Amino acid sequence: MAVHPVEAESAAPASPLLSLEELRAAFHAVGEERYHHRHPFHLLMHEGKLSRGQLQAWALNRYYYQSIIPIKDSIILSRGPDPVFRRAWRKRVVDHDGDATSEGGIKRWIKLAEATGLDAAQVRASRGTLPATRFAVNEYLNIVRNRSLLEAVASSLTELFSAKLITLRVEKLRQFYPWLSNGLDYFEARLYQAPEDAMFAVNYVFDNAKTRVEQELAVQALRDKCDILWAQLDALYFAYVQPGWPPPGAFRMEDQ
Amino acid sequence: MAVHPVEAESAAPASPLLSLEELRAAFHAVGEERYHHRHPFHLLMHEGKLSRGQLQAWALNRYYYQSIIPIKDSIILSRGPDPVFRRAWRKRVVDHDGDATSEGGIKRWIKLAEATGLDAAQVRASRGTLPATRFAVNEYLNIVRNRSLLEAVASSLTELFSAKLITLRVEKLRQFYPWLSNGLDYFEARLYQAPEDAMFAVNYVFDNAKTRVEQELAVQALRDKCDILWAQLDALYFAYVQPGWPPPGAFRMEDQ
Repeated sequence: MAVHPVEAESAAPASPLLSLEELRAAFHAVGEERYHHRHPFHLLMHEGKLSRGQLQAWALNRYYYQSIIPIKDSIILSRGPDPVFRRAWRKRVVDHDGDATSEGGIKRWIKLAEATGLDAAQVRASRGTLPATRFAVNEYLNIVRNRSLLEAVASSLTELFSAKLITLRVEKLRQFYPWLSNGLDYFEARLYQAPEDAMFAVNYVFDNAKTRVEQELAVQALRDKCDILWAQLDALYFAYVQPGWPPPGAFRMEDQ
Repeated sequence: MAVHPVEAESAAPASPLLSLEELRAAFHAVGEERYHHRHPFHLLMHEGKLSRGQLQAWALNRYYYQSIIPIKDSIILSRGPDPVFRRAWRKRVVDHDGDATSEGGIKRWIKLAEATGLDAAQVRASRGTLPATRFAVNEYLNIVRNRSLLEAVASSLTELFSAKLITLRVEKLRQFYPWLSNGLDYFEARLYQAPEDAMFAVNYVFDNAKTRVEQELAVQALRDKCDILWAQLDALYFAYVQPGWPPPGAFRMEDQ
């Protein structure tokens, strides 16, 4: 696994503002370096090497992340002073919680978890979720609560990278785990939702970062968000792949 | 490694209050099950099997935990309406931040980190700390901010178990890593500080939990705190023992 130690870059206050293209390039450089498409757990998944129990552990733990997404977007809504911004951002809450015409992403994720063989009630209660999953995901809430609105918006920008990963994942899940095929609606929906959301957020950051320092803070927020995703897969790998030690109280594969 | 899956117990509202001895026994049962004295990283440490680089990773990451302890105790101070309570709790902030007569626990931890060969400035800046360490430790701040004062106090009760672990650790560190011997002041001080603090906190919880449900919430807070400590060692083990994959940007042993 290639990983690169990188210090948070900080620009001198007088540094010139990045252009839209430079800012976009800075975001993509973060993704190349630390988005979780490179994580060994995903590599195993895409090589067809995960067991059903390991996919259950993934679906169960990732549910906790899915379940807080509309909460973190509601926090961002609550901090947005502008009705136009809130109307645009509101779409995200609808995408995940659903409305009269759509069941929403959380319900779709439960269908995926059920396709792995998990019980929906266990998933909804996040029973057996790794503490490390909760800690990482709760940090996402800390970020959108405690940093500037600009950084909160920027932390969503892993959506710049998700469509490519999801396209690959759906292909590999169908190929190697065909018994999961009727649980993939979540990903189909995200394929068109995420790029729209990312475009809005990139433009928002560019329009609202008035100094280079603010632009760098936005890039750092994306870096921190990538770490949140990465840490979730580290915890899954440690508990369920190698050495395979779930902490006290967590989901155990042999229980299934 | 023996771990036991345990559901959070919940008592019916009408359940009788636990006596002081029963409450203390409930706390100790949590410790037996999930305090980090059983964690494989500590077992390796106590068998003399950690390298200097692994001990550096431990000292660096654990510093982040040490550095937020007086912050979490200041949050608890800020929530305590009673001057008598605050006078008692204030001791903890002094123990870690120091005063005219004592350098305090944070400085002592830096001396330990220096004894491993780390640079004090890197440690103070928490440069290279694992994101998973930050997430787990920040959850401790979430708990003392967001739960009841009773639960915030109860989350400190890992101090019930620490003296025994520290006694063993100091003996094993002197035996297997004699080059660390002049960095152990932190532990010597904790040996008498922690039991005093734990006695106060147990009595506070017993005196202030008015229902069995409140007592169970206090026990759950201790369980969650144990998970915070455990997750820090899981992350260290994953990054620096097996499989040995530090995430992007984290401290790397070969850099030393």
